[in-house]
Amino acid sequence: MEQTLKAVIYGATGYTGIELIRALLNHPYIEISELVSSSSAGKKVGEVLPFLSPYYLSEKYLVSEPQEDFDLAFLCLPHEVSYELVPQLLKKGKKVVDLSGAYRIKDSSLYAEFYGFEHKNERELKEAVYGLPEVFREDIKRATLVANPGCYPTATLLAIYPFLKAGLEISDVIIHALSGVSGAGRKTKQHFHFPEMTENFFAYSVEKHRHTPEIEDVIKRISGREVKIRFTPTVIPASRGMVSTVYLRSEKTNVRDLFLETYGGEIFVRVCDTPPHTKWVIGTNNCFIYPFYDERTERYVIISVIDNLGKGASLQAIQNANIMLGIEEDAGLLQTPFFP
Amino acid sequence: MEQTLKAVIYGATGYTGIELIRALLNHPYIEISELVSSSSAGKKVGEVLPFLSPYYLSEKYLVSEPQEDFDLAFLCLPHEVSYELVPQLLKKGKKVVDLSGAYRIKDSSLYAEFYGFEHKNERELKEAVYGLPEVFREDIKRATLVANPGCYPTATLLAIYPFLKAGLEISDVIIHALSGVSGAGRKTKQHFHFPEMTENFFAYSVEKHRHTPEIEDVIKRISGREVKIRFTPTVIPASRGMVSTVYLRSEKTNVRDLFLETYGGEIFVRVCDTPPHTKWVIGTNNCFIYPFYDERTERYVIISVIDNLGKGASLQAIQNANIMLGIEEDAGLLQTPFFP
Amino acid sequence: MEQTLKAVIYGATGYTGIELIRALLNHPYIEISELVSSSSAGKKVGEVLPFLSPYYLSEKYLVSEPQEDFDLAFLCLPHEVSYELVPQLLKKGKKVVDLSGAYRIKDSSLYAEFYGFEHKNERELKEAVYGLPEVFREDIKRATLVANPGCYPTATLLAIYPFLKAGLEISDVIIHALSGVSGAGRKTKQHFHFPEMTENFFAYSVEKHRHTPEIEDVIKRISGREVKIRFTPTVIPASRGMVSTVYLRSEKTNVRDLFLETYGGEIFVRVCDTPPHTKWVIGTNNCFIYPFYDERTERYVIISVIDNLGKGASLQAIQNANIMLGIEEDAGLLQTPFFP
Amino acid sequence: MEQTLKAVIYGATGYTGIELIRALLNHPYIEISELVSSSSAGKKVGEVLPFLSPYYLSEKYLVSEPQEDFDLAFLCLPHEVSYELVPQLLKKGKKVVDLSGAYRIKDSSLYAEFYGFEHKNERELKEAVYGLPEVFREDIKRATLVANPGCYPTATLLAIYPFLKAGLEISDVIIHALSGVSGAGRKTKQHFHFPEMTENFFAYSVEKHRHTPEIEDVIKRISGREVKIRFTPTVIPASRGMVSTVYLRSEKTNVRDLFLETYGGEIFVRVCDTPPHTKWVIGTNNCFIYPFYDERTERYVIISVIDNLGKGASLQAIQNANIMLGIEEDAGLLQTPFFP
Repeated sequence: MEQTLKAVIYGATGYTGIELIRALLNHPYIEISELVSSSSAGKKVGEVLPFLSPYYLSEKYLVSEPQEDFDLAFLCLPHEVSYELVPQLLKKGKKVVDLSGAYRIKDSSLYAEFYGFEHKNERELKEAVYGLPEVFREDIKRATLVANPGCYPTATLLAIYPFLKAGLEISDVIIHALSGVSGAGRKTKQHFHFPEMTENFFAYSVEKHRHTPEIEDVIKRISGREVKIRFTPTVIPASRGMVSTVYLRSEKTNVRDLFLETYGGEIFVRVCDTPPHTKWVIGTNNCFIYPFYDERTERYVIISVIDNLGKGASLQAIQNANIMLGIEEDAGLLQTPFFP
Repeated sequence: MEQTLKAVIYGATGYTGIELIRALLNHPYIEISELVSSSSAGKKVGEVLPFLSPYYLSEKYLVSEPQEDFDLAFLCLPHEVSYELVPQLLKKGKKVVDLSGAYRIKDSSLYAEFYGFEHKNERELKEAVYGLPEVFREDIKRATLVANPGCYPTATLLAIYPFLKAGLEISDVIIHALSGVSGAGRKTKQHFHFPEMTENFFAYSVEKHRHTPEIEDVIKRISGREVKIRFTPTVIPASRGMVSTVYLRSEKTNVRDLFLETYGGEIFVRVCDTPPHTKWVIGTNNCFIYPFYDERTERYVIISVIDNLGKGASLQAIQNANIMLGIEEDAGLLQTPFFP
Repeated sequence: MEQTLKAVIYGATGYTGIELIRALLNHPYIEISELVSSSSAGKKVGEVLPFLSPYYLSEKYLVSEPQEDFDLAFLCLPHEVSYELVPQLLKKGKKVVDLSGAYRIKDSSLYAEFYGFEHKNERELKEAVYGLPEVFREDIKRATLVANPGCYPTATLLAIYPFLKAGLEISDVIIHALSGVSGAGRKTKQHFHFPEMTENFFAYSVEKHRHTPEIEDVIKRISGREVKIRFTPTVIPASRGMVSTVYLRSEKTNVRDLFLETYGGEIFVRVCDTPPHTKWVIGTNNCFIYPFYDERTERYVIISVIDNLGKGASLQAIQNANIMLGIEEDAGLLQTPFFP
Repeated sequence: MEQTLKAVIYGATGYTGIELIRALLNHPYIEISELVSSSSAGKKVGEVLPFLSPYYLSEKYLVSEPQEDFDLAFLCLPHEVSYELVPQLLKKGKKVVDLSGAYRIKDSSLYAEFYGFEHKNERELKEAVYGLPEVFREDIKRATLVANPGCYPTATLLAIYPFLKAGLEISDVIIHALSGVSGAGRKTKQHFHFPEMTENFFAYSVEKHRHTPEIEDVIKRISGREVKIRFTPTVIPASRGMVSTVYLRSEKTNVRDLFLETYGGEIFVRVCDTPPHTKWVIGTNNCFIYPFYDERTERYVIISVIDNLGKGASLQAIQNANIMLGIEEDAGLLQTPFFP
């Protein structure tokens, strides 16, 4: 790569936008062109995000619309806003990585129930590639629109994929996942007020969560089979981190070998010997996985650990952008975990 | 009750011992007689536990053996130490609430594998009553030795019991539980050093955990049926709190009514309309439970929340003591949760 | 005391209101009569504060105005609302403990600058007794209106009072104080959103803080001297707790003896041998103080530790109420610290 | 720079060693040659520090002594061990950045009192340059041994230096500093056990702390004047971060201008308009400073914020190495803060 590519971040002042800025500032080929923010347009970056101030970036103004030309857009926007913006950007010939849920599920009829709006952009929905590189790498190479996966689906699908890839049937899938609070975004809520969330943890959205149809949809796309999953998310008093534990039944196989074969050539997925800690992946694009077979109950248990803002959002978005742009896949992504 | 009963706490300087002290200082009928500690014997309480200092207690000396007569002993000791001590105390005619695991499982052959010692005290093992009052209240009334349940089994069994009580068969039982760090005791460990545990969470002992046979043993005692469970514990960056989520299959029933019937008369168990937060029960002997049926995957999901040091250990120990001694069951146990 | 006294809590759903409920539920003589809340009137307590649900209280309705007669009102209200309400309650013959700042400073001219409203209730301002029992106990006995001190002033004035009581002049007073987040109240703010406040700490209001004139005003009332103080508050990623470190110059004296003499007879103040931890006082009405003389810089350093919601607010309010009502001063206040 | 320089890290498995690894893995010119660890020699890096495993580094073995040649050594060792090792390394012609306190104070007679050993290496002590680049940059350029400053002295001296540089006399210096727990190192202690440190904060070493003579010594070296300081450290329930608040008296000056002039050309020091948050600098080599004059008490107050493991230790060590080696000063140091 000789030339630097210009990227615009829409929704730059939320957590996924900020994490994108953090990583792109050290990216060798992608340069942040402009930062778009409807709430902070007209203000200086240094005023809104004071921790960025020492950098040249701090003197820039946040904009309501990009003023200059660019190659690539990262959308860190509410679902409905992304839904509307994507067709406009594609029409202008831009490449898009959409971090919202607006183009993740192929079946448009599910959006009314799970996202609260009617989805009529069938063409874009069809065109969108699901941005899980370990599964859809070849499609991403040719994509102009990547629907960046949700954090729970990322951790969960990486735990399930080796079975599907090997053509094994799976059943009785139960997913119990834990997430840091940043996964819920930057908007304040009473129960996320520090005094109420410190020393507190709880399950939520247990009857119905948007990531359930997303996971089922992708399983179906890969395996051709309908599998119903039970998914329970839990929120934990930490800023970042995610542990998804998947329980499932399948044929007898050497599960460790299965995972090593599937992920042996992957940069960002590592098969572990013990259950990984979230602290081992914080600030990185890594997924650490520990699979085992529980003889007593005849079930596979797979523990998959990511940083919800890293592999679960912004760093995976950069991985997708790298693949779309034909850059080395790990460009700008070789962060060491933040420890302690 | 006219007279005050005298209780000795063995292992007074660990977390369950300290929580017992905290609660007994406000108990109307039970008085702390002596505090036993092998590591701190000969020191003043106020020196070892300086936060207790404003109380008369702080001038007392911790002892290696009780010097005075007493009615009741709480054992907050390592399993092997409790194992040895219990027969001696029973021989002296003392009532005992043992917070260790030494007398919880009826099948003595399991101790070598799960606790690392041979269990030969068959008589005491047989005599021991499992101290889950909502299930074994009548037995506890007549008991001289109560084996106080583990924290995970307490939360989990209260989530399963209504099915068993109603005679419903259960299967496919998966338990995914989250615990604050205090459940691991007061002994320091590298991964519980504050800088490494803050902002960190992870599964552990996933292949084998002592509480698995304990839960299975009690299910069998109640229902007469062998049920194999899958149990995954996870540790969370909080001091206290526990969420046990139980997934199981059973016959079709109105699960909310089932739980309301089972626990309608209970002081310390409450059936909730939404998934409870750990912060709602911290510092109390309460268990908050949210049960529901997942139509899509035809499974019951029950979310059970306790304070691992409260209902999961020391406060349940007091509940058991109250029942053994014929005191009102809630004496000394009407704490309001500590919020925020 | 034969009879139970009835207390109303205004502003019952904020942190100080909730802490009052927690303590009063175990108070032997004071009974919660009604809970007033402008934002939640008409809702059941159990709906708004679900963690209280197991208690009879949960079935009560929050009210916009008390419907029944009562003896005492605790005001956990915004300053301006307390300002207006106090004269009405006094006119009806009620005793009032006001936890706001509306009647703490005697000089009415300071309210416009520090509280943003003109103070014209000179009579009530004059009548109000500053509710620091260790200093103004005799006045509180005769009071109908007690202005409950701020958390920073409580910790700080207890660190300074022994010098003033002994008639020693003080100078060069610098106060550097640390507080948990609950001191800022229950209202959400962006920088108190859990992901942003965990692992974060910072100074704030460093040029001007309401507690500066409060501390100076009380020093003047006690000593008759004007002393200008420098006060820097810092907020810490903890829910509760406060450490106020006071640096000052004064005459040579044995500072430990001075503190032991001053507080020897006090139930809730303890002079320590080492710097106390906030965890030693959390959930209590205790103040732990460690004073020493720094020979090298010829300065006294006094480290004063409280729970900002305990001795710094609601539990001190109960201490004041007990004194006003002629009850034993420690009734309902013998909580053991919440550890760990 | 054409060639890569080889660096050895002694004491690689402590927090400062790990932070050095994290930063050096992205350094353009310095390559980690070998990792020395007395406790873990012979083990693979990936076994001891599993979070590093995805990197080539994880297959390396930790060594007890370097086996290959190298250019530079970072010492993350106990003071006494560094004390012994430094002369040996200098004799072999290596450049050394010592992160211990063994060569920070020029007056060798102070080591017995503050570090517990007699200091007899007068030559090396004289040769050592104090590694605060904003003050001693020219000396560092010529140094072979850099004594990397303590975290408290770094934050504090950057707050004081502008006065000294301008030749202003300072007096009445009081330093109240807050630090995350990682500043105390990786060794477990009872009061840093997670359940006891979460929601806890306290002052410590208030009568005597090693950083007091270090700060006084450097002030004297810069200004030629003896200034006695009062220094109070406080520990906070966060992994990283440091706020040092300095109170001092000096001549009347425009303090903001004074700081802007002093630090205008510095990459890593930024003068702020409001008190900075620790979260704004976590993971970086930045120091954010907010100075102001308190008219009421005629004192300057300067609030200086760093990451104790960043500018307070390992990243400043890299800054020093860059200067010693003639590399651009910010090579490998352009991290964006870790947010949230």
